[in-house]
Amino acid sequence: MTLEPAIMLIFGSTGDLSHKKLYPALYALHAANRLADNTVVLGIGRRDWDDGRYRESIAAAVRSAEPAAEKTMADFTGRFFYHCLDMSDKTAYNSLWHKAGQLEKLHHLQGNRLYFLATAPDHFPLITRQLGLGQPAIPGCFRRLMIEKPFGADLSTARAFNKQLRQVFAEDEIFRIDHYLGKEMLQNILVLRFANQLFEPAWNCHHIDHIQVSVTEPFGIEQRAGYYDKSGALRDMVQSHLLQLVALLTMDQPSGEQADDIRDAKVRLLRAIRLFSREAAETDVVMGQYDGDERRRPYLKEDGIPPDSRTETYAALRLWIDQGRWQGVPVYVRTGKRLQRHLAKITIVFKEPSYDIQDQDDRRNILVIRIQPEEGIDLRFNIKQPGMTNAVTQARMNICQNCDPLTQSPQAYEKLIHDAWQGDLSLFTRWDEIEATWTLIDSIRLWRAKLPLYLYRSGSDGPVAADRMLERDGRAWLDL
Amino acid sequence: MTLEPAIMLIFGSTGDLSHKKLYPALYALHAANRLADNTVVLGIGRRDWDDGRYRESIAAAVRSAEPAAEKTMADFTGRFFYHCLDMSDKTAYNSLWHKAGQLEKLHHLQGNRLYFLATAPDHFPLITRQLGLGQPAIPGCFRRLMIEKPFGADLSTARAFNKQLRQVFAEDEIFRIDHYLGKEMLQNILVLRFANQLFEPAWNCHHIDHIQVSVTEPFGIEQRAGYYDKSGALRDMVQSHLLQLVALLTMDQPSGEQADDIRDAKVRLLRAIRLFSREAAETDVVMGQYDGDERRRPYLKEDGIPPDSRTETYAALRLWIDQGRWQGVPVYVRTGKRLQRHLAKITIVFKEPSYDIQDQDDRRNILVIRIQPEEGIDLRFNIKQPGMTNAVTQARMNICQNCDPLTQSPQAYEKLIHDAWQGDLSLFTRWDEIEATWTLIDSIRLWRAKLPLYLYRSGSDGPVAADRMLERDGRAWLDL
Repeated sequence: MTLEPAIMLIFGSTGDLSHKKLYPALYALHAANRLADNTVVLGIGRRDWDDGRYRESIAAAVRSAEPAAEKTMADFTGRFFYHCLDMSDKTAYNSLWHKAGQLEKLHHLQGNRLYFLATAPDHFPLITRQLGLGQPAIPGCFRRLMIEKPFGADLSTARAFNKQLRQVFAEDEIFRIDHYLGKEMLQNILVLRFANQLFEPAWNCHHIDHIQVSVTEPFGIEQRAGYYDKSGALRDMVQSHLLQLVALLTMDQPSGEQADDIRDAKVRLLRAIRLFSREAAETDVVMGQYDGDERRRPYLKEDGIPPDSRTETYAALRLWIDQGRWQGVPVYVRTGKRLQRHLAKITIVFKEPSYDIQDQDDRRNILVIRIQPEEGIDLRFNIKQPGMTNAVTQARMNICQNCDPLTQSPQAYEKLIHDAWQGDLSLFTRWDEIEATWTLIDSIRLWRAKLPLYLYRSGSDGPVAADRMLERDGRAWLDL
Repeated sequence: MTLEPAIMLIFGSTGDLSHKKLYPALYALHAANRLADNTVVLGIGRRDWDDGRYRESIAAAVRSAEPAAEKTMADFTGRFFYHCLDMSDKTAYNSLWHKAGQLEKLHHLQGNRLYFLATAPDHFPLITRQLGLGQPAIPGCFRRLMIEKPFGADLSTARAFNKQLRQVFAEDEIFRIDHYLGKEMLQNILVLRFANQLFEPAWNCHHIDHIQVSVTEPFGIEQRAGYYDKSGALRDMVQSHLLQLVALLTMDQPSGEQADDIRDAKVRLLRAIRLFSREAAETDVVMGQYDGDERRRPYLKEDGIPPDSRTETYAALRLWIDQGRWQGVPVYVRTGKRLQRHLAKITIVFKEPSYDIQDQDDRRNILVIRIQPEEGIDLRFNIKQPGMTNAVTQARMNICQNCDPLTQSPQAYEKLIHDAWQGDLSLFTRWDEIEATWTLIDSIRLWRAKLPLYLYRSGSDGPVAADRMLERDGRAWLDL
């Protein structure tokens, strides 16, 4: 289905995110004939590029993501135009609106506009103010803003920024991106839970022992020292991706299928996660910072990092959800950089069966939802060991969602741009979700100065203290 | 583990069952070193064979079941001895006891005896009476009786026979065989249900829509006209195998792991199956008799079948279980001869998910337990259809229990003989189970003369009336 014709304005069009994610995603939409013929993209950046230079850079970005893209590349890059702008100079925006208006006229566009903020977050307030001043909505046309995380750095900065945003855009015009929500398996969580009679009755504290969520990366901070050192794992990963995962996994069934039904259910859950007291922070939070190894520098020696930085590159939490459904069921989450593995997955560990199984092995049912790199579902349950025995053995059934080359999952940004273009807010976070997650993160960060920061070796599984946190409960991180 | 040394006495040792099932099963126990060196088998039959002739016939039977058996064949057949006996002549039994005693002395056996009745059922009462007269138990030794179905032809004949049996044997010396209970997947039902936290919470009327049990055979009555025409599908298959399957599937969790805990749970369930009134029989019973096809004769033209026989070779029932757990959940069972397929399987059909799925396909969770020829578990559940869509698609996970040549399931009789030898009654039916199942079957057969008997074509799926029975409920037999 072709999306409505529109002009898309990308702020930060010469940057990393645009090249790595947006252009390949737009190319995929183009190649699937989802972009109307007259849809155009106006890239805005500080660099002194022209359309030709811009298009070359887009073609290179698409090629490296999609080597087979060559055939329709000229058609594709022909949609792109460049406008050089000093985004901090508010007097310069008039020329931008003039250029956008010209393009609209030339391509017979009625006034649908999709703004995408891919700049450093410092620019967000100024740009949005200018969007409001210069470009009111045209009746009958849409005007939507896609905005990257981070959405604030804590509750108070997020509130201030949101207030600004809301002076310009209505809540349903704001598409706050958590790109994890665009991932195939996160959308699958809802289907798995609510479109199956088999799983939902077991999805509670009577049958589930605990839940593990792991998002681990092998790389360090790369070129992002300036941003990362002010952020850290709690703000960069937990506030957004990990808490979204927890919400989808544990929320009640939405009362309907609309975007706000789903977001209502998520926010109810996010608000039910117990805030951290100082005592809880001491036992239920583990923060770490990577040390080096033979080949790699420690965090404190990375370019641009102050040598006394106490920013955490690893965080593990034990979360409690104060709802009857989850009474006594801890949700352990962990995320970090420079770890051994690159993966994102959820592990649902069921309780021991009441049936008396005579051996000593682990016989709990386990459901693993693999988010990346493999996308799939892996179910372990008990069967009789074949043969002349009454012993029980564990069977493993699994499906791989991205193993069939004919059904490759779309990239998250392809899905997200597509949905925003259609006005579907389901996969975007609403303000009250942001508010609830910052409230939780702030309750941890409040005690930050008093908590230890463990060094962990690059390429390891993170600080030993995170293992201890589970051992104390008679549990362990599962490597399945 | 080696079984206790014993003498096994097989009545009906020259017959079909012995050759097809018992000798290959004993060979498997022998080859797995489960038989003690001095364990011997005394075959009893009417034919005028000697040990040599008997052993040749055993070797041939084992070879055709297990071509690789040659190596230890002489060792194996050397355990067998033959005794010719007119089983209806009670004066002749003294010679049998003399022979058995000689063999015991010669092989240093202490007096453990396992009797196996594999004759036509007419001989059962006379043989058991003789066993009681001639051979009381020796203190410290076991004396056990394995007995084939049919156990009576209705409640009153079963009661009379059981009374006779119990004059000779204690209930825990009687191993009533339902060879389906020896099948790998039937033993697996209990593990699947009770050793997994994931399945049990969904195993009730809130989540299950209905259950289907199908046991179908392509062959006709073969050489068994005399027995079969007096029996029919209800007595031959439903009273035994199918009701045992229903009981294992739907019973409550046994209060313990002992044989009587399991049998208690089964009998509670079997007694809760609603008996048939005349009205219920008219709507919830379909009986059929096979007609011929191009190659094969109709039932009424089979050798030994009276041309006006009204014996059913097919039966389908809709059963109701009067327990809260199964309120409103029908259990459809069907079995028949000369049908298209050769299989035994259980299909658990869950209710529609409450989640609004926008397409028209069948989106119910389905669990198929395959009993034969394939042994395995097949689970269908819903996932998000991969790609830029919110559609739902059905994923199929399955495990095959007998696909790995290294873990071939033992044959039912191997397991059953092994268990009886050990005194484990778990896989044998207790008298009160027999009583409950005959009570149910009698409640159907009471109305038999008033019910239609549908002709169905050989090689078909049975009478159309059986499809109609489900259609009336908005359901269909599932061919998965």
